[in-house]
Amino acid sequence: MTTQPQARAGRPRSEKAEKAIIEATLDLIAEGLGVAELTIEAIAARAGVGKTTIYRRWANKEDLVVDALATMREPLPPLAGESVRDDLIALLDVVRREVGHRRARCVINVAMSEADSPKSVGKRFFKQAMEPRLTAIRRVLSRGRANGELDPDLDIDMGLALLSGALIWFGRWGPEGDLPEDLAERIVDHALEGIARRA
Amino acid sequence: MTTQPQARAGRPRSEKAEKAIIEATLDLIAEGLGVAELTIEAIAARAGVGKTTIYRRWANKEDLVVDALATMREPLPPLAGESVRDDLIALLDVVRREVGHRRARCVINVAMSEADSPKSVGKRFFKQAMEPRLTAIRRVLSRGRANGELDPDLDIDMGLALLSGALIWFGRWGPEGDLPEDLAERIVDHALEGIARRA
Repeated sequence: MTTQPQARAGRPRSEKAEKAIIEATLDLIAEGLGVAELTIEAIAARAGVGKTTIYRRWANKEDLVVDALATMREPLPPLAGESVRDDLIALLDVVRREVGHRRARCVINVAMSEADSPKSVGKRFFKQAMEPRLTAIRRVLSRGRANGELDPDLDIDMGLALLSGALIWFGRWGPEGDLPEDLAERIVDHALEGIARRA
Repeated sequence: MTTQPQARAGRPRSEKAEKAIIEATLDLIAEGLGVAELTIEAIAARAGVGKTTIYRRWANKEDLVVDALATMREPLPPLAGESVRDDLIALLDVVRREVGHRRARCVINVAMSEADSPKSVGKRFFKQAMEPRLTAIRRVLSRGRANGELDPDLDIDMGLALLSGALIWFGRWGPEGDLPEDLAERIVDHALEGIARRA
């Protein structure tokens, strides 16, 4: 941030500018622009600021996109730690709420589309945003495997793939708009119980 | 195709050119270029052909990309129709082989990243390539629900999301190179049996 001679009494103008820049970035992504097509010019125009205002805070558009995406994250919920089912539902529900909005689906698009590109916005976003969630889910799965709630031979990677994969699937190919409130619960229960007929 | 006064005795030169164009397109995608960044110029240069050679066959790059992606598809396997488990494994294994190669993963990237863009290469690719597979999987799931192999109350969309979601997940975030040969089987068995401890 630029230094200013005044006392730091809250800087409404620069906070407003930052907010406008972030919102503009997310709006443009939500409207379908990929990172390759985004430009600082377009973001500045949408935000109603000058390009220098943007460059004062972010060295390049990739840094800005990563920060913009980061503002969409919900904090991880505190886990009750009693039933594996409840904790898995709580964790998946955070992701469900995040991917449920059109904006957030564009976040997923960016993460999924850019992950192999050299500048790797997707990889950076993934590390910052998704990895803590996946780690938390893995931890709950390991707990369940150890304490008898889950299959003692459970492949943790497979459990994670089923749960997260299904959620991302619905977020990508499901209906427009918010995902159903009971989706996390339904995914967890189907993954827990399996789709075969029970004896 | 251009008309020629000679008899059609196989046109090696134009078939070679088409093959080179398709290969060049897939190679560029595999190297990380998204559809937005692809240009007919770059494809022509890589293929060693002139731009007019490309434009003679494809009106625009999106049409070319859709056709190029289509060449990577394996035919759907004949299904034995005896056990739902075996048929699901056969169907998922086709997709597993397709997503197992780096090139094909880029196919997935394109489909996942472009699906919301106006020109919608992703949506067109999805309709041509993925939808027949998903329909086949749904049909097997419905058969299993009806004949008692699967949960009589099975939510077909959920079954599909678990199976396909897990496979796409591994294709996207799994290790580089081919996916393990037993992956389809392991996904199907975990989805069938569930991850909870069996009584």
